[in-house]
Amino acid sequence: MNQFGIRFSFTTFGESHGKAIGCVVDGVPAGLEIDESFIQSELDRRKPGQNEFATARKEADSVEILSGTFEGKSTGTPIAMIIYNTDQKSKDYTNIKDVFRPGHADFTYWNKYGIRDYRGGGRSSARETAARVAAGALAKLLLKQLGIEIVSGICEIAGIPSKEYNFSYAPSSEIYALDKSVEEAQKNAILEAKNAHDSVGGVVALKIKSLPIGLGEPLYYKLDALLADAMMGINAAKAVEIGDGIESSRLRGSQNNDAIRNKGFMSNHSGGILGGISNGDDVTMKIYFKPTPSIFIEQPTITCNNEEVDFALKGRHDPCVAIRGSIVCEAMAALVIADLLLLNMGSTVDGVCNYYN
Amino acid sequence: MNQFGIRFSFTTFGESHGKAIGCVVDGVPAGLEIDESFIQSELDRRKPGQNEFATARKEADSVEILSGTFEGKSTGTPIAMIIYNTDQKSKDYTNIKDVFRPGHADFTYWNKYGIRDYRGGGRSSARETAARVAAGALAKLLLKQLGIEIVSGICEIAGIPSKEYNFSYAPSSEIYALDKSVEEAQKNAILEAKNAHDSVGGVVALKIKSLPIGLGEPLYYKLDALLADAMMGINAAKAVEIGDGIESSRLRGSQNNDAIRNKGFMSNHSGGILGGISNGDDVTMKIYFKPTPSIFIEQPTITCNNEEVDFALKGRHDPCVAIRGSIVCEAMAALVIADLLLLNMGSTVDGVCNYYN
Amino acid sequence: MNQFGIRFSFTTFGESHGKAIGCVVDGVPAGLEIDESFIQSELDRRKPGQNEFATARKEADSVEILSGTFEGKSTGTPIAMIIYNTDQKSKDYTNIKDVFRPGHADFTYWNKYGIRDYRGGGRSSARETAARVAAGALAKLLLKQLGIEIVSGICEIAGIPSKEYNFSYAPSSEIYALDKSVEEAQKNAILEAKNAHDSVGGVVALKIKSLPIGLGEPLYYKLDALLADAMMGINAAKAVEIGDGIESSRLRGSQNNDAIRNKGFMSNHSGGILGGISNGDDVTMKIYFKPTPSIFIEQPTITCNNEEVDFALKGRHDPCVAIRGSIVCEAMAALVIADLLLLNMGSTVDGVCNYYN
Amino acid sequence: MNQFGIRFSFTTFGESHGKAIGCVVDGVPAGLEIDESFIQSELDRRKPGQNEFATARKEADSVEILSGTFEGKSTGTPIAMIIYNTDQKSKDYTNIKDVFRPGHADFTYWNKYGIRDYRGGGRSSARETAARVAAGALAKLLLKQLGIEIVSGICEIAGIPSKEYNFSYAPSSEIYALDKSVEEAQKNAILEAKNAHDSVGGVVALKIKSLPIGLGEPLYYKLDALLADAMMGINAAKAVEIGDGIESSRLRGSQNNDAIRNKGFMSNHSGGILGGISNGDDVTMKIYFKPTPSIFIEQPTITCNNEEVDFALKGRHDPCVAIRGSIVCEAMAALVIADLLLLNMGSTVDGVCNYYN
Repeated sequence: MNQFGIRFSFTTFGESHGKAIGCVVDGVPAGLEIDESFIQSELDRRKPGQNEFATARKEADSVEILSGTFEGKSTGTPIAMIIYNTDQKSKDYTNIKDVFRPGHADFTYWNKYGIRDYRGGGRSSARETAARVAAGALAKLLLKQLGIEIVSGICEIAGIPSKEYNFSYAPSSEIYALDKSVEEAQKNAILEAKNAHDSVGGVVALKIKSLPIGLGEPLYYKLDALLADAMMGINAAKAVEIGDGIESSRLRGSQNNDAIRNKGFMSNHSGGILGGISNGDDVTMKIYFKPTPSIFIEQPTITCNNEEVDFALKGRHDPCVAIRGSIVCEAMAALVIADLLLLNMGSTVDGVCNYYN
Repeated sequence: MNQFGIRFSFTTFGESHGKAIGCVVDGVPAGLEIDESFIQSELDRRKPGQNEFATARKEADSVEILSGTFEGKSTGTPIAMIIYNTDQKSKDYTNIKDVFRPGHADFTYWNKYGIRDYRGGGRSSARETAARVAAGALAKLLLKQLGIEIVSGICEIAGIPSKEYNFSYAPSSEIYALDKSVEEAQKNAILEAKNAHDSVGGVVALKIKSLPIGLGEPLYYKLDALLADAMMGINAAKAVEIGDGIESSRLRGSQNNDAIRNKGFMSNHSGGILGGISNGDDVTMKIYFKPTPSIFIEQPTITCNNEEVDFALKGRHDPCVAIRGSIVCEAMAALVIADLLLLNMGSTVDGVCNYYN
Repeated sequence: MNQFGIRFSFTTFGESHGKAIGCVVDGVPAGLEIDESFIQSELDRRKPGQNEFATARKEADSVEILSGTFEGKSTGTPIAMIIYNTDQKSKDYTNIKDVFRPGHADFTYWNKYGIRDYRGGGRSSARETAARVAAGALAKLLLKQLGIEIVSGICEIAGIPSKEYNFSYAPSSEIYALDKSVEEAQKNAILEAKNAHDSVGGVVALKIKSLPIGLGEPLYYKLDALLADAMMGINAAKAVEIGDGIESSRLRGSQNNDAIRNKGFMSNHSGGILGGISNGDDVTMKIYFKPTPSIFIEQPTITCNNEEVDFALKGRHDPCVAIRGSIVCEAMAALVIADLLLLNMGSTVDGVCNYYN
Repeated sequence: MNQFGIRFSFTTFGESHGKAIGCVVDGVPAGLEIDESFIQSELDRRKPGQNEFATARKEADSVEILSGTFEGKSTGTPIAMIIYNTDQKSKDYTNIKDVFRPGHADFTYWNKYGIRDYRGGGRSSARETAARVAAGALAKLLLKQLGIEIVSGICEIAGIPSKEYNFSYAPSSEIYALDKSVEEAQKNAILEAKNAHDSVGGVVALKIKSLPIGLGEPLYYKLDALLADAMMGINAAKAVEIGDGIESSRLRGSQNNDAIRNKGFMSNHSGGILGGISNGDDVTMKIYFKPTPSIFIEQPTITCNNEEVDFALKGRHDPCVAIRGSIVCEAMAALVIADLLLLNMGSTVDGVCNYYN
């Protein structure tokens, strides 16, 4: 079950400390110009080791396309991409060989599969998200053709919320902050935790702009449900909110309904989705990330042999996974939209007849 | 795209004011005793017209099994169930024939499909959830065989939170309240809104008990992602939270990690899921519902012909959809778990060999 | 696993002697005029009891649409259709309650599921194909919009081959014969077997005309592979041949390749498919049916309790299932094409951009 | 649509003359010993350049595992395998850059996608089947654990049929012949065609031994339908026959039914499948391959610009694709069985309860 999507889909493979990670992206329409430098630039946005707010691990994260393109364009066949693992300090992990790190998937993988590649979390490592970002970059290339844009940033760190959401500011911020006025406080919260050998949680806000009306296949492949699926599956994500979701649950219908005028909706509490279908307004959502479970403080846990131990991690880890998670959220959103764009094309008889006649 | 699940799956059909709604449940293991009265009792929990906190519409919601059982047991073939629509006051809806109700799917269905069964919202009506509840009842019958239990209730109405989560109290409450001490306040909030021709939002808490360790197929059919998908797809759901999700995003790792001892986890911030796989602890989650969009106050909107109008709904509607939504959440959770139970069975070579030898 | 298709898909339910059989057809583009009389006429072509070459069982096979249409047109939501079982002489089957009929699925269902609805073969009865024909009729309605036509007929009975394939003659023949010159001999072969309480096999030829170039999603949803899947899954089908398949295996490349000219292919050994994709020529294929396993001659078999018995069937059965199978083959072909038509729509970036701009 | 299978599935990627071909195999149960030398040996059986009956192209076909294993065992995560393309004489193909080779997919890919990697057929090249063989080798490793064996061989070449099917002889024959007594004649037919710059067709017989009863998920994931899908999707396959399929269509029911005794079936006309489910007997089938379309004789065709030309291929090609096709058929059969083995595990409530209790 390592595939996502139906018509525009991707399959990922690879472990944190195996030979390589990668993906196979299927259903990319033929004739798309494959800008490899764009794909690499997306990976660079996600890659670790760039500043003090991310892990010190340095992965080149150089992506190589193995198939599916010809003379710079997609051919309609699967596009496989590979990223070789380079900075593998597997020795960092011998101390966790037999122990289940609290907050991690060690315990569940061991119990489900009876075997576990303990090095860096193996398959459950956030390193796998590099493959999602590569796949997402292809989806973004398609979306660009239609003028659809996806932006994101950090709207809360350690309980410190952004007051305004300035998506154009985020790319220039080391922590993808949406609000310059609280950025310093958010950074300090991260560094304080880091210095205390601890970590912090955070929240990503994401916006999809210029989406056509009509995306989403009700009732069981709705746009919002698929976005929730996509985002909740990202490492450390623990809640997903569409539009003003949580606040909406506290409002009255008269406050929450978005009135409609000729020019469009007068407000956007719904987050651009009605009945699971895009309404043409911006799709807005938030993804809540727990604090990195990898901390350097002693914690009670057990070993594979059921021995109780107190254990402190070593190694290099992000003090706040939400930051780099922001890029992964964008990738997953792009992949959801690409899939729904293609699926939607057969919605009406008129559309089908126009296509073939 | 009206199917959910892979190995234990269901397909629903039907519109609010068509002849019937129903479902086809596929993958029910053979030999399951099909307790029809239990299925009916689940539908009765969801059905409208039972008290002043729900719509006054009265649907018998009598379910009939059409296939897949023989002498009281499942045979491994698809179980189709049908619920005929009886209390159809289609005339109630002639006034919305050409107008898009704010907060509803009218606008998006019209734009996506170019045609719309406007009577009661057609396919986008919450009436469809009766079919989910019927399918979910079958899943629950399977789960019972394994001692797995799903409970739910209302943990917040109109911003009034429950202080304690007493899941055994909810079934006896008209609003499925989890906390008797705030139930009256929550009820009053509903009735006040109702009297003001308005509606309120609310939040459902759900717990899955006695789940085996190992459910969830990483990386793209994770337990939490699938639950998010399932819940976000329910009418009016706008946010999904696993465990302490939102609060977790404000904590440090040392506060949020669940320490492990021989007897199990010392806390359950994670909501019973690590790396997308059940860890044996209770799965806990919350689903946030927006206020019913159907209100009886004038709202600005447009018609199919792009005319701007001010429009007040008539008819009968739930003042708070979260209440009956609680039952739907249980059904969807049961369906998710049933699917993952079957998919998990081939996880190890030992398991496969034991099964066939 | 009772669903077929991805984008235009259908799910069937029901047993031979249960309350009803039916289907849910999903992905029908909105705005299609649903000609109910056409659907019924397709069912009438398949229904039993019409002449001495089919079973004497009389089923009304009246189909009722339950959902998915509004004012005579499809709405883009699932179209459920139901056919109630009426001529159920379940008593005919009490004698097979404990015995496995040779050539039937009794033995395998019993061993797989541990329970079996023995009445008329339950789910494994060819009666289920009525649901396929209903679903296929919807697909045909879509295909008609694009000028695509599917024809079929009997090209061999009991080893007596048709010399010419006159698809326009078949509809007027009681045995859907393609060749009037051998029809009498073919009919006699059937009646001779019938009089000897036996049955005969036969072969269906099928042609899909005016198909657009480009249908088929290589490499694992190819047009020919999907047709093979669809046809081999029909009751009693034991071989599927595309184009001149079997004869091709005896030829040289220079004999079998279809030369290409401006106006198209100079021959059609390939059956209109190259690389799993339609080439614009007629798709031609044959489906080989075994003789009806239900015969009225004593045969050695065993019971559920492993007792060896000699057993002769009673009841009413088709002496040659290929005949009515012809209609089912058409339905399955239509369903395959409808699915591939919709899936193909996102094949090129130009196509996607044209659709949305 | 480059994925096959549901629970045990694989995705392939790569073109004949791209950087690499490969596959991602998902759903391999954890704990399986991954014998890499066995996987390589399967690829070696398929690889070209080994004798005069196959193309002179030499591909090392060295397979490398990139993920999904740890300390020699599968971990339950996706197993990616890669085969780099080495003997790429792309220049051989510049002459086909603009021309559609008769019998090939050039015409259809060009028309479907508007772009085509012409080098060696690109994605439509039989080279892709190396990835299937690698995936199939993993499936075979699982099947071995259960004692299931798959054998195959050539039962007809150029119309010269094998009189006996000696599956233990085939591995030692250069053409995988099943019958030593006609092997020489079959070889001569191939060489005669080869010397005439032509090619011949052939037929593969395949047997699956020691299969458990109960595999196959009726009604739309039947064992026979899935095998037909799998085999018809192989390059150059044009017909698929289960058991005595074609001959059965000429028999009477009394001749074709397999009588049942305590010890099992008294004959196996059905090919081990009843109602789409394995009956415990050997599964037998035949796959009919057309002659290699690549021949070195002038043939009429057209160019991308619709110019009519007479064209003779250059390069190196198999004179009879059925021979190496035999190995691919085995791989696909193994993949089908592996998938059905896992899917079948949840067929009964007793099975589910036993697994979890």
